[in-house]
Amino acid sequence: MDIFAYMQGIGQQAKQASKILANTDTSVKNQALLSIADTLLARADWLKSENSKDLAAGRAKGLDAAMLDRLTLSDKTIAGMAEGVRQVATLPDPIGTITDMNYRPSGIQVGKMRVPLGVVGIIYESRPNVTVDAAALCLKSGNATILRGGSEAIHSNQAIAACVRDGLQAAGLPSASVQVVETVDRAAVGELLRMAQYVDVIVPRGGKGLIERVSAESRIPVIKHLDGICHVYIDDQADAAKAIAVAVNAKTHRYGVCNAMETLLVAEAIAADILPALAAEYAAKGVELRGCERTCALLPQAIPATEEDWSTEYLAPILAIRVVPDMAAAITHINDYGSHHTDAIITENYTRARAFLRQVDSSSVMVNASTRFADGFEYGFGAEIGISTDKIHARGPVGLEGLTSQKFVVLGDGHIRQ
Amino acid sequence: MDIFAYMQGIGQQAKQASKILANTDTSVKNQALLSIADTLLARADWLKSENSKDLAAGRAKGLDAAMLDRLTLSDKTIAGMAEGVRQVATLPDPIGTITDMNYRPSGIQVGKMRVPLGVVGIIYESRPNVTVDAAALCLKSGNATILRGGSEAIHSNQAIAACVRDGLQAAGLPSASVQVVETVDRAAVGELLRMAQYVDVIVPRGGKGLIERVSAESRIPVIKHLDGICHVYIDDQADAAKAIAVAVNAKTHRYGVCNAMETLLVAEAIAADILPALAAEYAAKGVELRGCERTCALLPQAIPATEEDWSTEYLAPILAIRVVPDMAAAITHINDYGSHHTDAIITENYTRARAFLRQVDSSSVMVNASTRFADGFEYGFGAEIGISTDKIHARGPVGLEGLTSQKFVVLGDGHIRQ
Repeated sequence: MDIFAYMQGIGQQAKQASKILANTDTSVKNQALLSIADTLLARADWLKSENSKDLAAGRAKGLDAAMLDRLTLSDKTIAGMAEGVRQVATLPDPIGTITDMNYRPSGIQVGKMRVPLGVVGIIYESRPNVTVDAAALCLKSGNATILRGGSEAIHSNQAIAACVRDGLQAAGLPSASVQVVETVDRAAVGELLRMAQYVDVIVPRGGKGLIERVSAESRIPVIKHLDGICHVYIDDQADAAKAIAVAVNAKTHRYGVCNAMETLLVAEAIAADILPALAAEYAAKGVELRGCERTCALLPQAIPATEEDWSTEYLAPILAIRVVPDMAAAITHINDYGSHHTDAIITENYTRARAFLRQVDSSSVMVNASTRFADGFEYGFGAEIGISTDKIHARGPVGLEGLTSQKFVVLGDGHIRQ
Repeated sequence: MDIFAYMQGIGQQAKQASKILANTDTSVKNQALLSIADTLLARADWLKSENSKDLAAGRAKGLDAAMLDRLTLSDKTIAGMAEGVRQVATLPDPIGTITDMNYRPSGIQVGKMRVPLGVVGIIYESRPNVTVDAAALCLKSGNATILRGGSEAIHSNQAIAACVRDGLQAAGLPSASVQVVETVDRAAVGELLRMAQYVDVIVPRGGKGLIERVSAESRIPVIKHLDGICHVYIDDQADAAKAIAVAVNAKTHRYGVCNAMETLLVAEAIAADILPALAAEYAAKGVELRGCERTCALLPQAIPATEEDWSTEYLAPILAIRVVPDMAAAITHINDYGSHHTDAIITENYTRARAFLRQVDSSSVMVNASTRFADGFEYGFGAEIGISTDKIHARGPVGLEGLTSQKFVVLGDGHIRQ
């Protein structure tokens, strides 16, 4: 197989399809989404049987139980995928929206129209539900999609792609609107990352290794999500009840997620009052505490933290705790050791809340709220393609709007430049 | 000189300065801008004497008159630079602006705050006024700047940089807020394009060769501007007077600019009526016409266009003209041969105007207005760092807002995720 020619063909077809999708009516895109959902449900047995090939290969390869679990398509996961696609159909269509039409002194009227990016390349690891999830968001936002899933899920992904194609065709849309790369050859990823003439943006979804490889190799802009080293800073003017509620929630609501707190910062004036109560809560939930010297002096159960702990994303029931002199020190710690993802202050002090919001350089900055809220659904986007830790183009949770751009529209009446 | 160590030092200092600039009050930034303007005027004689070294070297090197002209700093150009900096001081500060604070069902309030990108690297060719122009825009938007100008302007750029530093210091801002690379070694550009840990975005300003090199080599996102192959399509339902006024203005108002029309498309039903009158106007202005077969049949003065003409940015008094069957054919031509910069339709037909705005995939799409309006000043940005032909991050004329990003701000009252 000539990977170069194969990928070029996919790119060309995606570009063609993107021109049609950019001008497709909302109702047609929604019809395609509903048809895709119907097809997934109607072909659930076939999807499970294709999935069983991947599961068998995975077991033979020795994948662990957690990976096999993420790979499995059950009636429940298939129903969930279909429901997710239906929900995307209910979201407002961002494309074509015109805003800020203002008259200029010259007499022209200038505004912006939201438009698709064009072709979105998605590179992801084993969870096959990403296939339909990403395809639905890209379709709704008028983009063509090229999907490259993990080799472990190749049969599942191709089966899902077949359902997606059927749904597209039922609505009269080109089947190349959503294409799945049908080779496990890793060279295909390299080609995808170089096809700047066909692909407008790359969205990697998976572990850090994948994202770093994609960022390093890509000649195409990448919407990427690296670490989530999130902080909660408990100010000395914090309300203790709120501080404990938020600090417990941010760490223990879910451990393996990017918006979980990894480091707790506590103002020294309040540390002796609040840390013992907090430590009791963490102990009840089995969270290991790693503290700075002053933390360890207050909490006998804490083990000493090393320098490395301040820049570690545990994704586990482990928490680093540092006592800091004041808010300024907390902000310096966050900006230096954090990953610019999500950070919160707990305080009742208006001036500090305002300063924290301005000075912390993170994609989400919060006052008196759990870092766990940093999420496309919680922010009201209705869906999420990922969370960007970049500053260019999209920052923070990325919904449909992150898959779009804006062009200027100018209305005149024969106006010429003087 | 160790270029790697030198550039790393510049990068580190810029990053440090950017953290201060991000939190600098509007009044301090404006004070720095006004001090820079004052210093430029106060040191005009010194600027001209430094500039004369570049001019002497340029003449010795055999630079042509146009290049020497662009390189020259006169009292008038220095006054113009100072006035430009003063104007940037009068623009609204985009940083810190909070928008869209909405309550969510969970009770949290979510919105966005506009923030600087961080460090902007500007790579440009000989015009030294870019130095102060770009520095002013980056400073106002809270970014640190690393400037790398052409070797022909090295003395002028360093002298301007010294004035900028004095202005920054007078306002109490770090002089590393604006740094000029003080070596003509081309390896410095390569280092700048690789310092992703320090530099957030690269803005190349100059000819196509420079921009292509920067895009190909950069490991950092680039806000780039490639060709401007702009079209005007005269629909068969156009008002003839508006069509002629706009088509003449778009081609002849200025020739060497990216938003000048390069190809005129005319609906066949109106071609015989409108082209002879238009051709007379172009003849009076000395514009060479290159036409398709049907154009040449209507206009004896037109010479036959080749396939290459449809994708050529002349930047000169030359115009390609093609007769097309209808608007759909015009849109296909624009999307296939154009550069997605700026394209206009002339029509009185509402439905066609609406379809053209939606279907043409360009950074500016216009109805009954000259392509020459595609400009940051005309759009009301007050200033322009360039025009982007990309879709990611910034598209079309880029003003202060294109040098910023947004972060999410979340306000709660002890809210936790359920």
